[in-house]
Amino acid sequence: MATFNNNVPTKFPKLDPKGPAGDIVLAAERAKATFNTQELTKFMYGEEWLDRFSRVLEVIENEPAFDKSNRYYQGRNERVADAFKKDKRMVELAREKKWTDVDSQIANFLYDQSSPFSLHSGMFLPTLKNQTTDEQKKLFLEPAVKHQIIGCYAQTELGHGSNVQGLETTATYINETNEFEIHSPTLTSSKWWIGGLGKAANHAIVMARLILNGKDFGPHPFCVQIRSLEDHRPLEGITVGDIGPKFGFNTVDNGFIMFDHYRIPHVSFLARYAQVKQGTGEYVRPPNAKLSYGTMVFVRANIVMGVRFALAKAATIAIRYSAVRNQFVDAANPRKWENKVVETAVLDYTMQQYRMLPIIAQAYACFFTGREMLRLYNENQTNMNAGNFTLLADLHASSSGLKSLCTTMAVQGIEDCRRACGGHGYSMFSGLGSFYQDYLPNVTWEGDNYVLTQQTARYLGKQFRSVAANKTKESDMNFTSGYLYEYLQNPNSKCPAVEAADFMNPEVLLNAFRFRAASMTQKLVHQLDDQGKSWNSMTVEIARVSKAHTQLVLLSNFISGLQAARSEVSSSTMQALRNMALLFGSHTLEQELADFLVSQYLSPDQAGMVKDLTLDLLSKVRPDAVALVDAFALPDYYLHSALGRYDGKVYESMTEMAEQEPLNHKLVTDSYEECIKPLVHAGKAEGRWKGEGMQAKL
Amino acid sequence: MATFNNNVPTKFPKLDPKGPAGDIVLAAERAKATFNTQELTKFMYGEEWLDRFSRVLEVIENEPAFDKSNRYYQGRNERVADAFKKDKRMVELAREKKWTDVDSQIANFLYDQSSPFSLHSGMFLPTLKNQTTDEQKKLFLEPAVKHQIIGCYAQTELGHGSNVQGLETTATYINETNEFEIHSPTLTSSKWWIGGLGKAANHAIVMARLILNGKDFGPHPFCVQIRSLEDHRPLEGITVGDIGPKFGFNTVDNGFIMFDHYRIPHVSFLARYAQVKQGTGEYVRPPNAKLSYGTMVFVRANIVMGVRFALAKAATIAIRYSAVRNQFVDAANPRKWENKVVETAVLDYTMQQYRMLPIIAQAYACFFTGREMLRLYNENQTNMNAGNFTLLADLHASSSGLKSLCTTMAVQGIEDCRRACGGHGYSMFSGLGSFYQDYLPNVTWEGDNYVLTQQTARYLGKQFRSVAANKTKESDMNFTSGYLYEYLQNPNSKCPAVEAADFMNPEVLLNAFRFRAASMTQKLVHQLDDQGKSWNSMTVEIARVSKAHTQLVLLSNFISGLQAARSEVSSSTMQALRNMALLFGSHTLEQELADFLVSQYLSPDQAGMVKDLTLDLLSKVRPDAVALVDAFALPDYYLHSALGRYDGKVYESMTEMAEQEPLNHKLVTDSYEECIKPLVHAGKAEGRWKGEGMQAKL
Repeated sequence: MATFNNNVPTKFPKLDPKGPAGDIVLAAERAKATFNTQELTKFMYGEEWLDRFSRVLEVIENEPAFDKSNRYYQGRNERVADAFKKDKRMVELAREKKWTDVDSQIANFLYDQSSPFSLHSGMFLPTLKNQTTDEQKKLFLEPAVKHQIIGCYAQTELGHGSNVQGLETTATYINETNEFEIHSPTLTSSKWWIGGLGKAANHAIVMARLILNGKDFGPHPFCVQIRSLEDHRPLEGITVGDIGPKFGFNTVDNGFIMFDHYRIPHVSFLARYAQVKQGTGEYVRPPNAKLSYGTMVFVRANIVMGVRFALAKAATIAIRYSAVRNQFVDAANPRKWENKVVETAVLDYTMQQYRMLPIIAQAYACFFTGREMLRLYNENQTNMNAGNFTLLADLHASSSGLKSLCTTMAVQGIEDCRRACGGHGYSMFSGLGSFYQDYLPNVTWEGDNYVLTQQTARYLGKQFRSVAANKTKESDMNFTSGYLYEYLQNPNSKCPAVEAADFMNPEVLLNAFRFRAASMTQKLVHQLDDQGKSWNSMTVEIARVSKAHTQLVLLSNFISGLQAARSEVSSSTMQALRNMALLFGSHTLEQELADFLVSQYLSPDQAGMVKDLTLDLLSKVRPDAVALVDAFALPDYYLHSALGRYDGKVYESMTEMAEQEPLNHKLVTDSYEECIKPLVHAGKAEGRWKGEGMQAKL
Repeated sequence: MATFNNNVPTKFPKLDPKGPAGDIVLAAERAKATFNTQELTKFMYGEEWLDRFSRVLEVIENEPAFDKSNRYYQGRNERVADAFKKDKRMVELAREKKWTDVDSQIANFLYDQSSPFSLHSGMFLPTLKNQTTDEQKKLFLEPAVKHQIIGCYAQTELGHGSNVQGLETTATYINETNEFEIHSPTLTSSKWWIGGLGKAANHAIVMARLILNGKDFGPHPFCVQIRSLEDHRPLEGITVGDIGPKFGFNTVDNGFIMFDHYRIPHVSFLARYAQVKQGTGEYVRPPNAKLSYGTMVFVRANIVMGVRFALAKAATIAIRYSAVRNQFVDAANPRKWENKVVETAVLDYTMQQYRMLPIIAQAYACFFTGREMLRLYNENQTNMNAGNFTLLADLHASSSGLKSLCTTMAVQGIEDCRRACGGHGYSMFSGLGSFYQDYLPNVTWEGDNYVLTQQTARYLGKQFRSVAANKTKESDMNFTSGYLYEYLQNPNSKCPAVEAADFMNPEVLLNAFRFRAASMTQKLVHQLDDQGKSWNSMTVEIARVSKAHTQLVLLSNFISGLQAARSEVSSSTMQALRNMALLFGSHTLEQELADFLVSQYLSPDQAGMVKDLTLDLLSKVRPDAVALVDAFALPDYYLHSALGRYDGKVYESMTEMAEQEPLNHKLVTDSYEECIKPLVHAGKAEGRWKGEGMQAKL
């Protein structure tokens, strides 16, 4: 090969995209909104938080360790190495800027990528805070807060995930030496999936079966040193490493660990609740475990709030791009731009609206329910501290169903938005592909989404039996028993709507959701109790009943949240939110239509009305589409998407990002000599190449 | 840091997984099957093809260039480089082993990863075969067949995908010089997504608007040299490169290209159909374009057959792992193994069966419909050659709906199987993550799945209007007009089933699907024609109607395919397939229940019967679950999955693959010195580290 400079970066010619230009289109979209975007933003976040958000954003946007520009091109080794750098810098920044926990959370939210230290703050510190004695706080928590020890949380094993009671790792107390011996008896007992364990952590909370004097007390937590503090080498008796590549989350060193008769001191057993007496190995039982259910509600409320962001992010990208992207001239309704007929924005196609606008509505629904759950969590914590547990069961049951339904909805919404971006949704530059990959574990962890529905349905069944037997006192009535009771007063009632507009009354929609959830609960209880069907055989229906209840919770919180907000927002903003609530209800009803028809509360004619209503709402919401996603105020740094930029410069951004592709750093691929040249030059030998020389070379 | 050997590979201790052992479990599953697996395999593939399959498999399993063991760990650059090596070796192997096209297709199927040359054989060669004159065949096709020129197919642009008529690249004929000038007028006119273009190809079929004497004749194909045959440098006037990372398909160099007044000779215009007269630029119109619709049917029949494999692959992995994986003791029905109560295999949970067994049924449904489409394609080609186009419209409409429905079903099925594998489904070692990523574009390319449904519905509407107006002659009746006609004879009929068992009669199920599709078509036509609704406003319903028709096609072909196969298989195999067909019908009906209830053919009570029937069929199919996936005969090399191995050694495989993770090649991560040590050693300075030295180091 003739020598030439192969290291010529590829540059696109300076040309404009075919118009209408993205920035002008989005400005026009924003101008036609029916409400004030900033007002809605402030209503959702509050000014104090927004100020904080801006301050943190400004800091990290200018931090090289928080730079995202390499994110889509790197292999795993580079990504993990960069994630470590970000972790280190994050510790420094928090000190330098005197960040509160909230500031740090905002920084992590904006960076939007888990890293080796994520579980240190996410699980290791909270466990140490909640489950340690004062002595243990000094020994473990204090250095952990300063990152002088770095930890992880090792529960899941290769052979056991959902079934925590089936964990195999043992911790046998040795009375003579006052030690525990941690041991992994089988290959399947290897801890697995543990974030931060693969390379970063030098300590782990290990869940192991507590064995005292030959008796098995089931899984308990231990704080175990696993790597040297001097040089980070794994300690003897330990096999530890990274579990390998995953569908997403590849910036995290999810790890495995096995113990070979590994001794740890008595103080490693986290002894805030249960205790083991030194020397004798006597077990001291923990107090009421109900308190930990409160924490679970808090975690799940935050998951629902996270779903709000996930859906808002996906919708922001898809909506903005759909406004900028044109495809086909709609002959029946041609679009004019500067007096010329141009192709129609895909956002103006009904199917595209149907695919995306309900996702914005879901995001708002999650906002109102997440907020309500946090309020109830606080109320319940106050109550529980006063010995009152009345709120807990309902809250816990709803939170199980909500975690299950909302995270499933989020994953679906992200993927629906990605597909709605057409071919470019498949480019990593859309920002949606990696987001989907990283978000996906939410449907499996913190309770598998199918298993969780059993908790909700079990509670619904219990409430139903109590209400049906007139055993629920009026003073004990709550949201759930309330609607079950109402249903039982009139189990043959019918939806009164006679035209589509009747469903614009939120109460009409809500009554349909109440009836459906109650009648499905009744049928489930009938099959279990009267027909003697096994729980296992009913799990398909159980998942449906949980969903029915949870969708009612979401719609109900949305509507009551709006009523409560009347004094806080202007009527135009209220109207936009009201349309969102109606669209959420109407679209959800349509998606789950079979349940409503089987319950016979809705007639086939009414089903048709709901379909018409949904289409009608789509056209009502359409002018506000861009403003409704703008209101979530997700900055470009967070989105990191060529398609979702605030300024609509989609094609400029796609080509700039393509110029950065490492394969484009050389004009001719390294594989040419070995894999292409021998084949092509065989043609030269045959005297072909008639076309060669037709064009001059670069 | 003290010096020590950091390059110690991580090794798991030699321990067995907790029993029952995977190989013994799968052997027991296979022993309880009600039919002969090999008989079913032979029925589906034929012995000749199976022999061929084994021969090719043996060759590539032993070829280093086809080795898959690095697949899940590599970054993009390494993956592309390896893909080039495979491409080169594939060309050599085909020559050495005198492989037929079918042999090469089998090799590519088994390798299961697209590569830079994939579109050379997939699109460049077929286009040259179909659209060239004899002169062009000699100039382009002959060297292309020998890989002396390497090509790609450049249609899609940055700004235009679905709307081919909106492409912006121009090819202006210069009468004076007898050349075409290819030009990219805007940024959005850049060709984009073109497989093989980024780094591999030296030629491209370019779709460009043909401009003759100032008049625009719309997009036409040109064969254009883009890189030097001497040294592979891009030719002058061309900007070409890789479009960057994608959600999947990262072994392919999808590329962009822009032309700056780039001249090509007259012979580059592919002139088999339309022609441009030399010197005058006069346009000669092509003959009837209908012939190309036949090819589309062939492509789509193969997509349906591909969906069969996609679903079979996903189900094979999920079913085998679900048989091996245990979780929880089912107290109501405890499992005994060697006289001890052990945890229940997850495959024995009803919900798990409900999530997976219908996917196996979908795979078989696609087999029968794909086979029937290929038969019809051949019949239609024969007919068309004799001037008879009667089959074409129905076939084309069904093939559009089938491409849309089946690929969407495949993506959903792969993801459902991945989730059904619990946490480990998220590991790349499951084989399902990368498979999902690579399969996903199928829902967007070859016709966006939403847009395609409009073609099917348009045809259904046309047929309906003709039948309703008594304009369809009996001799012209086909599958579609047949069921529409039947429906119109009795549009108020009701399903006669009185108990769940009545739905075991395939004709009862089929009639429900016929009625539903026909009544939805009628309602659609009514809204369009009588209520004057616009096509755009009806696109949501249009997608539903297309789905209803297509699901009927699938069920109908399944049932008639079984009837035809009576003489070919034993009664036990027939019974197993019959259960599959019923499960496919019953589960699909349940998923789409709202349509059937709205059409009022089914009552709410009958809906309950169908739910019961589905559960009943799950328990009937359960003993055959492993055998039914085994029958697809997908080898371990193809699956490349720790969870889906034929021998069930899931946990041994997971740990072996984790040992290969590059992060585990060193005991201490390279990031330690910079990112961990400064934090941890700050604790030393504070005099902490009370625990240090408690354990000896490795």
